[in-house]
Amino acid sequence: MTATHRGQSEPFVWEGGDPLAYKEDDGTFRSVTRQVLTGAEHGQGTSLRYFEIGPGGHTTLERHGHTHVVVPIRGQGSALVVDRIVPLALHDVVFVPSWGWHQFRAARDEPLGFLCAVVVARDRPVLPSENDLIELRRDPEIAAFIRL
Amino acid sequence: MTATHRGQSEPFVWEGGDPLAYKEDDGTFRSVTRQVLTGAEHGQGTSLRYFEIGPGGHTTLERHGHTHVVVPIRGQGSALVVDRIVPLALHDVVFVPSWGWHQFRAARDEPLGFLCAVVVARDRPVLPSENDLIELRRDPEIAAFIRL
Repeated sequence: MTATHRGQSEPFVWEGGDPLAYKEDDGTFRSVTRQVLTGAEHGQGTSLRYFEIGPGGHTTLERHGHTHVVVPIRGQGSALVVDRIVPLALHDVVFVPSWGWHQFRAARDEPLGFLCAVVVARDRPVLPSENDLIELRRDPEIAAFIRL
Repeated sequence: MTATHRGQSEPFVWEGGDPLAYKEDDGTFRSVTRQVLTGAEHGQGTSLRYFEIGPGGHTTLERHGHTHVVVPIRGQGSALVVDRIVPLALHDVVFVPSWGWHQFRAARDEPLGFLCAVVVARDRPVLPSENDLIELRRDPEIAAFIRL
């Protein structure tokens, strides 16, 4: 039976789930951990995950057909969402629309932890091509922001 | 176009949405506000809402076919979930399964604020009948907990 209550053994480490899972290191992200909080068994067709990026770290620059709903619950940072850089303050609501480029970065001096909702049945992320990078870098702010 | 970033005009008050919406007062809840953070337009078939219960307040005791995924992000409290009382600490993950009775209560001295995910296409809540209340109250802890 699916647990009705999952506490934390320490802040931001949830009991009863898989241990902290690290995405396979393909060299495109830095200092990111993931915990799956809910999934198909919760009957909503979505999965809620907790990602934490270490100070100065970042997620992979990518895009895909499924959307993201992101709510930071620890620290702060910033993100590329589609075509602009947005601040990430505690409890802001960030929406990554279908096929929007996105990359999340923690502030230099503290981790950034956020909830991220996705549909369970989702497509795989796509990395930027050389042409995509040329397009993205036309905006100087984005050129200065992105990490590969 | 759906906003890619919703900040807060003050903590726990999100910009760009409906103002704080109060559920119609039917006398079954006390001191509860709601803000809708995401919905059908976010492409996941789910809606993320923020509920805040004032100190000593509570939500309606109810059940329904759709599920809830709840994550407290402000304060603390406790909840009836199905057939037991669970503590609600910051960032605990609470799952209310289909047709599980549930009621959330804030601690006496601080508000309880939580994110709550539901499917967009959902059924209406049902209130307990006299027989349901007799069943629920067989457990002394539940009898002492529930508020009508």
